Amino acid sequence: MDRLRLHIEQITPITDEEFEFIRSFFTLKKVRKGQYLIQEGDDVKYEYLVLSGIYKVFYTDDQGKEYVCMFAQENWWMSDYSSYFNQTPAAMYLECLVPGEVLCLTLYGREKLASEMHKMEHFFRVKMTRGFVALQQRIKILLFNAPQKRYEEFAKLYPVLIQQIPKKMIAEFLGLRRETLSRLYTNSK
Amino acid sequence: MDRLRLHIEQITPITDEEFEFIRSFFTLKKVRKGQYLIQEGDDVKYEYLVLSGIYKVFYTDDQGKEYVCMFAQENWWMSDYSSYFNQTPAAMYLECLVPGEVLCLTLYGREKLASEMHKMEHFFRVKMTRGFVALQQRIKILLFNAPQKRYEEFAKLYPVLIQQIPKKMIAEFLGLRRETLSRLYTNSK
Repeated sequence: MDRLRLHIEQITPITDEEFEFIRSFFTLKKVRKGQYLIQEGDDVKYEYLVLSGIYKVFYTDDQGKEYVCMFAQENWWMSDYSSYFNQTPAAMYLECLVPGEVLCLTLYGREKLASEMHKMEHFFRVKMTRGFVALQQRIKILLFNAPQKRYEEFAKLYPVLIQQIPKKMIAEFLGLRRETLSRLYTNSK
Repeated sequence: MDRLRLHIEQITPITDEEFEFIRSFFTLKKVRKGQYLIQEGDDVKYEYLVLSGIYKVFYTDDQGKEYVCMFAQENWWMSDYSSYFNQTPAAMYLECLVPGEVLCLTLYGREKLASEMHKMEHFFRVKMTRGFVALQQRIKILLFNAPQKRYEEFAKLYPVLIQQIPKKMIAEFLGLRRETLSRLYTNSK
């Protein structure tokens, strides 16, 4: 839980007492490779803070084809936010690619922390703002049709992940064919 | 400015005194058709709350081709958020399609309001959260390759805009060719 404190204090300083209150809302969960934290149709009880491991958030279409929405690694927050905030059934999947640990936070806990502590309202606002800006960048990647451009933007955004995630998944994330991506990898070396 | 108060009170009640403080940070601006509120390379001084009119946020590539990131209408907030929050030169354009009025808020004003009033920190967090969820939906539209699916999702998200915006721009927004979109329009009638 010390890492939770470090994570929060990157945005706002908190006292020992405040941290005790905050940590009481989080539960630790170990996650195995291939385990699903969310599946389509589930009630989405938690938002997750990644302590370790790598995770994939994706949709499927009627034919079962996967569309990767995001990859998450250490210190990222992840959930099916539309379902989490609106309390509607999950429309996506959250799967563990590399095993690790996550901290779980309910919507009740999140809202309670934000309403009782201005500092935590601030923390969640800043995190959400950064997430919003990251999604705008993601849209920019998808809008630029040129595969070369998409690949370059991805490499800038995820310098670590690009080494650790199978190329097939990166191709899905970028909306490219596997062969197109292989060509770009070769050219960039 | 009364509309600003109504807008804020949809999320949190405020007193007359609080509203006087809040309104002091906003300035009103009339916008003409074709006017740019932001151009690539600009310092991004403001976030805008749309009172009336329709606006288009877009990127261009090296060849000058446009990629529409979002359309904004009444009660939407808009800016080049990456540049606004990080105080870096604008990477996109914000253009007025249908004339109207906007309220302008500096980053200094935004952060001051959030730090001095827990209620406004809450307001901005809630707005940013909704914006984040909307962007996730936008990504979902872009990831689904089937043009029919993209069009249906767009029609659900923007039932009003779809009547008011030229088809050419909707095609750019959806990453579709103009002819493909026309076919979908015809089929959906």
